[in-house]
Amino acid sequence: LKAEIITVGDEILIGQVVDTNSAYLASELNKLGISVIQITSVSDNRQSIIRALDNAAQHADLIITTGGLGPTSDDITKQTLAAYFHSRLTQHPKVLENIRSLLAYRRVELNDLNIKQAELPDNCEVLHNSAGTAQGMWFKKDGRDFISLPGVPYEMKAIYHEEMEQRLKQRFDLPAIHHVTVLTHGMPESEMAGLIHDWEESLPANIKLAYLPSPGILRLRLTGKTSGNPVELKKSVERELTELKKIIGQYIFGYDNEKLEVITGNLLKENNLSLSLAESCTGGSVSGLITSVPGSSAYYKGGIVAYSNEIKIRDLKVKPDDISTFGAVSQQIVEQMASGARDHFKTDFAVAVSGIAGPAGGTNDKPVGTTWIAVASKNGIISHIYQLGEDRGRNIQKASLSALFLLNTEIRKYL
Amino acid sequence: LKAEIITVGDEILIGQVVDTNSAYLASELNKLGISVIQITSVSDNRQSIIRALDNAAQHADLIITTGGLGPTSDDITKQTLAAYFHSRLTQHPKVLENIRSLLAYRRVELNDLNIKQAELPDNCEVLHNSAGTAQGMWFKKDGRDFISLPGVPYEMKAIYHEEMEQRLKQRFDLPAIHHVTVLTHGMPESEMAGLIHDWEESLPANIKLAYLPSPGILRLRLTGKTSGNPVELKKSVERELTELKKIIGQYIFGYDNEKLEVITGNLLKENNLSLSLAESCTGGSVSGLITSVPGSSAYYKGGIVAYSNEIKIRDLKVKPDDISTFGAVSQQIVEQMASGARDHFKTDFAVAVSGIAGPAGGTNDKPVGTTWIAVASKNGIISHIYQLGEDRGRNIQKASLSALFLLNTEIRKYL
Repeated sequence: LKAEIITVGDEILIGQVVDTNSAYLASELNKLGISVIQITSVSDNRQSIIRALDNAAQHADLIITTGGLGPTSDDITKQTLAAYFHSRLTQHPKVLENIRSLLAYRRVELNDLNIKQAELPDNCEVLHNSAGTAQGMWFKKDGRDFISLPGVPYEMKAIYHEEMEQRLKQRFDLPAIHHVTVLTHGMPESEMAGLIHDWEESLPANIKLAYLPSPGILRLRLTGKTSGNPVELKKSVERELTELKKIIGQYIFGYDNEKLEVITGNLLKENNLSLSLAESCTGGSVSGLITSVPGSSAYYKGGIVAYSNEIKIRDLKVKPDDISTFGAVSQQIVEQMASGARDHFKTDFAVAVSGIAGPAGGTNDKPVGTTWIAVASKNGIISHIYQLGEDRGRNIQKASLSALFLLNTEIRKYL
Repeated sequence: LKAEIITVGDEILIGQVVDTNSAYLASELNKLGISVIQITSVSDNRQSIIRALDNAAQHADLIITTGGLGPTSDDITKQTLAAYFHSRLTQHPKVLENIRSLLAYRRVELNDLNIKQAELPDNCEVLHNSAGTAQGMWFKKDGRDFISLPGVPYEMKAIYHEEMEQRLKQRFDLPAIHHVTVLTHGMPESEMAGLIHDWEESLPANIKLAYLPSPGILRLRLTGKTSGNPVELKKSVERELTELKKIIGQYIFGYDNEKLEVITGNLLKENNLSLSLAESCTGGSVSGLITSVPGSSAYYKGGIVAYSNEIKIRDLKVKPDDISTFGAVSQQIVEQMASGARDHFKTDFAVAVSGIAGPAGGTNDKPVGTTWIAVASKNGIISHIYQLGEDRGRNIQKASLSALFLLNTEIRKYL
């Protein structure tokens, strides 16, 4: 079953709003085994909406629109759909009653514009909106299904889950789908592709692989699809996953929507371990990731951003002579920082980062992007050097994720 | 001039990635006076890409694609474009050299896949990518311009600003446009709208106002457009801006793409002032903002993330009795934190933040979102309470920007 999503709104086309509705719907439809073949965003303009509907109907079985259902005059999706499906707008007393009680609950006066929102095409099925005044509409025409939803994300989601999801399952004979996303760190896309080439080539035809790179993290998504047995499909995807783990297991830190800071935080919490940080080039960014997790105060005691040598020396007990001899970005210093932080904060683990984020500060020996990371625990100190890129922001981001990844690896060894 | 944006990628159509590229490009094109009439997302599939190109060419003068230029086999945009424009892929020695040096700098081995990325259609203009290995391509066909950019956002942005923006201005006869964006902090959108209502109503027809809200910052963008005299247009926009400043001057912290952390950093640097931080609920996020600015080590000495009371007491000399009496989130404690950080790091200014980011930790007296911020200098300590929202991530973001804004205000008073 092929679907197209059409999002309607001037604010999308001037770039004022990022369209998140279509990603949400696409993800939900995919879970049902409905393939989204195109997403189209058009302005609040009758001709543009009709052209998008006509185009979609040529290739898709199911067309879902969002947006343009508000009470003000710039929203024209409902009127356009009524004309497109040759229907008349008539007042739905039950809808009006729902709008009235919703507004009463919010202590908002019912006005003429709200009353107009109860006028709906006479040849659609109304999808009740429990979260707002704009109703969903389901039309059928020439063997195609057209569904119109409001653009306000939480209203769209309410209608989808309360009114639409179940009906989609009933109406269509859907294939089984199984996704697994493998989260990796430490191997660039092109090298990863070389490493898993043979495995990728041997995948069965109904299982596809996609590479999803972002700074510091490479996600590999396996998607299996079948019109046959969903249990067999899942087994078959899991079998391929097991093979993949044998090849790249050391680079995998999680699956699907898991986050490294959450996974690492859970490891610390479950094992009653504490953490502290000593950051130089990442400037508080590792700490920011750690504390983005609710409940992180259970294991994170604190951190020092040592942006000057004085602070490294005084608070982290780094040896001044070693800074002179080896430089602040060196294995010696980063290890002393980690050890110093662990002593200072009295924690089980301490992570230290020292690097040259750029754009200035690089030398021939230590170009911009050179970064040392150390992890200290009662088992001793380990450290690694990373050669990151040229961009300051991305270097900080990559160094922060590398620090978390190294910490994660060391905790797992420790347990 | 009408443009269409086509974003290519299976990850968009399964909803795994929200397409932010099209909003970015749409916003940039709008600044140049180019209207985006449609945004289309299609999968990494030859037929879908070609259909989208054909459709776009029917209505748009300029068609921009992003995505599908990676080195791996799932990326087929380049091959598809080569076929679409009847061109042959040939190796560009200069491009290969650029890829080689980029990878050498990153200490990544050049492999066959990277070498293939230097093979480009022989009838396009190559747009150099300074941030990655996938080049941009500019084709011309039947009076239409087609530009292909990589899907990785920072690579797309690099090519847009370094290679594309200027050429668009040269190639097309665009209307004169003048934008000024006013950056404000401390006034919610709905209240701001009331405050400037009369001014907004009196704007001339060719000058439009847009509200661009984001957590902690409300941007007001004034856009003037004319087919007439650009100098007159600019004067006219500036005149309106002067009036606006009279009304909301105290909330303005900068203009256009200025960042609060850069503006504040410059104030410190120019006046030879130093800064330190003591963060609790923001967990390193203020420090991360400060150090995101190149050269921040000139004024930023360091910070302490005091995520436990022990650290507040030991490193920041907060009085234990006061924590018991007033709680860690209180005026007394945040002022002691600021003062303690200033002493500890021996800086001209110190900023402290203590709040309840959530989701847990709120009480009736101090609900989630309650946040104290203090700034210490030789002129004494000032502090403010903020009632932020319920969402942890947004609370951290808003508190961090509020801290910078308060610091900025205090530095300006100090000078």
